[in-house]
Amino acid sequence: MHIEELTRDASLHFLAGSSLGRLACANQSQPYITPFYFVYHDQWIYSFSTIGQKIEWFRTNPLACVEVDEITSPQEWTSVIVFGRYEELAKTTDGQAPREIPIERHEESTKSIADQDARNLDFKLLQQRKLWWEPGYSRTVLHGTPRPLEPVYFRLSVDEISGHWATLE
Amino acid sequence: MHIEELTRDASLHFLAGSSLGRLACANQSQPYITPFYFVYHDQWIYSFSTIGQKIEWFRTNPLACVEVDEITSPQEWTSVIVFGRYEELAKTTDGQAPREIPIERHEESTKSIADQDARNLDFKLLQQRKLWWEPGYSRTVLHGTPRPLEPVYFRLSVDEISGHWATLE
Repeated sequence: MHIEELTRDASLHFLAGSSLGRLACANQSQPYITPFYFVYHDQWIYSFSTIGQKIEWFRTNPLACVEVDEITSPQEWTSVIVFGRYEELAKTTDGQAPREIPIERHEESTKSIADQDARNLDFKLLQQRKLWWEPGYSRTVLHGTPRPLEPVYFRLSVDEISGHWATLE
Repeated sequence: MHIEELTRDASLHFLAGSSLGRLACANQSQPYITPFYFVYHDQWIYSFSTIGQKIEWFRTNPLACVEVDEITSPQEWTSVIVFGRYEELAKTTDGQAPREIPIERHEESTKSIADQDARNLDFKLLQQRKLWWEPGYSRTVLHGTPRPLEPVYFRLSVDEISGHWATLE
């Protein structure tokens, strides 16, 4: 088996061509992984989620890891790892006021405009890539009880990225 | 979209039927994900790895998360999450003395026999499931330089397991 490192550009290219990955957060020293759909754009990974453990943990600790891969066998695979930070995007164009977001970097009042732009971009990118779905489809029924969809838009900075690919000789 | 919780038994069944998952460790509050192959057996997840960042981090902090899934689309998926602890298995039957393992739970001398049994089981399970490969195929060439394969056998306890599956209505 040969394992080669991907260059930063090749890693970014692989990330940009992916839409499904796995996202990890950590509470203290306990990691937690969820699969997620995303769009990469200009050094940021855009996505959304409903409220849940992942979002709660990220609001306390923004350190994130994203992994995307293509795995054929133990000896043939590509995997790209991103270390970054979670940044929540305020609500905007749906008529609701941006709500308070308990992340330090959102406390600057000048940030809210950038947040709105970022959230609009997030929504647009997700729509373009068909990673968003219509409200009619998105009503979640958990344990037989309809659960209101409360999407939280967020993005993850690509602070460090690395990749490897393995091939049979 | 309907999201249903899986029972513990259904989650274990899904885990037992999987061989590829994603494994997260954490260094302080920074999570890190890698894809990995494994075999589930009797409340433990068995696997091996070469030395690297994951193993180094687990030796400092054994808290782990494993995620296995089958994802068809954003609305159709199954995902199972395990919280557990990393436990390294000592070398045995290959003629090498068990080496020192800097994990607290390995310091008990009475543990080494159980470790050996566990490691033998790990190797056997991985062979049975064809998740191990012959040395001839496993020589890793990284950056053009052959890197010796130093497999580290480990297992992860299944302390908590939960699962969800989503379907279109």
